Amino acid sequence: MQKGEMLYEGKAKQIFATEKEDEVIVKFKDDATAFNAQKRGSFDRKGEMNNAITTLIFEYLNEKGIETHFIKKLDDREQLVKKVSIIPIEMVVRNYSAGSMAQRLGIEEGIKSPITIFDLCLKEDALGDPLINDFHVLFLGLVTREELDEMYHLTNKINEILKELFDKMNIILVDFKIELGKTSDGKIILADEISPDTCRLWDKDTMKKLDKDRFRRDLGDVTEAYVEIYDRLKTALNK
Amino acid sequence: MQKGEMLYEGKAKQIFATEKEDEVIVKFKDDATAFNAQKRGSFDRKGEMNNAITTLIFEYLNEKGIETHFIKKLDDREQLVKKVSIIPIEMVVRNYSAGSMAQRLGIEEGIKSPITIFDLCLKEDALGDPLINDFHVLFLGLVTREELDEMYHLTNKINEILKELFDKMNIILVDFKIELGKTSDGKIILADEISPDTCRLWDKDTMKKLDKDRFRRDLGDVTEAYVEIYDRLKTALNK
Repeated sequence: MQKGEMLYEGKAKQIFATEKEDEVIVKFKDDATAFNAQKRGSFDRKGEMNNAITTLIFEYLNEKGIETHFIKKLDDREQLVKKVSIIPIEMVVRNYSAGSMAQRLGIEEGIKSPITIFDLCLKEDALGDPLINDFHVLFLGLVTREELDEMYHLTNKINEILKELFDKMNIILVDFKIELGKTSDGKIILADEISPDTCRLWDKDTMKKLDKDRFRRDLGDVTEAYVEIYDRLKTALNK
Repeated sequence: MQKGEMLYEGKAKQIFATEKEDEVIVKFKDDATAFNAQKRGSFDRKGEMNNAITTLIFEYLNEKGIETHFIKKLDDREQLVKKVSIIPIEMVVRNYSAGSMAQRLGIEEGIKSPITIFDLCLKEDALGDPLINDFHVLFLGLVTREELDEMYHLTNKINEILKELFDKMNIILVDFKIELGKTSDGKIILADEISPDTCRLWDKDTMKKLDKDRFRRDLGDVTEAYVEIYDRLKTALNK
């Protein structure tokens, strides 16, 4: 697989062209940012771990009938994926209160929700990825009502599968964020990554945070947490 | 009607007990606040105009089949209303982009929306009345799903009636905010006020703002704008 020009550079990943029009290479960086890139850093093995973890999770979701952009892992830091046009809506799913929702509502973190909570955020760094609602999505014409319904449905299915998977790993899936993309024929599929960068993952026994909050909140042992997730994931999936 | 003890003081209104358990007096103040009370002021005749305007609008909505808390106007600054327990959700309706939505989405003001936009805000000054979504409402247990559906339905009906009324007044109803309350028997009815404090109202010909934005943005002629709305309202309603 020939790596072509860099098409895009985000905060944690680079995207490269390939010789195929409809396939690109994702390269995971060690760079970490938080609070809309006001906090910046990098830590050892982050790119490698997120590539490995996303690979295992996307392969597992594929097996469970969720179509993703993932094609194959190329090396420690790179994976080959289908080229999609990313829908500029971050789909946030919350099973427990935490992070920006806890702040917004003025409540404690760690309260289990009786319902699955979906937060839509406009993917727009300059605006700080603001919370938006269905009406804003339709006003902006980001997707149609039918597409938005499908996005909720898909996100909910992914949450159900991941909750069970992380439960096997003795981990609470507190919340996570996904990005969806449209293929050239208009199909909406899972893109981006699912990793400790994009999830809140708490050990069930100790409630220890095993995710990017260790970086955001200067809790230390950042690399160790990502490696721990990878190890537990391998065990749960017999890989 | 005997005015009893003050039960509550808000930014623009005071609520007093009466000799009847289920009725209270609303007194409209001249005080004005904006940006979550970071900007404070007061202007002549504001209380009087908001009392008069709310009276005309609530009477009109009652005629059109919308149940409100309004019973009768008592004097220049006071009206008698049914005592309700206010649901702590501000129902914001937007027909055009403006204000916090325009800022949030990074767009111009004054773009007509192809759909009616509803923004729910948590009525909580300490948190800055944040935008929330249906899931947050249900997570917090503020109302049930059925009650929330009814609140959307009611708010939408009010928007349809008011759009037509303001149109007759040669005014664009850009957006407005209402508060709903529950009566002692659990019925959800319109409460609070509808006035230039709670609406964005633009003259159709000149696009001149005839609402609280004149205060928020130091545009001058604040009292004049409120009086103008009252005058046009009286004409439209033959009062």
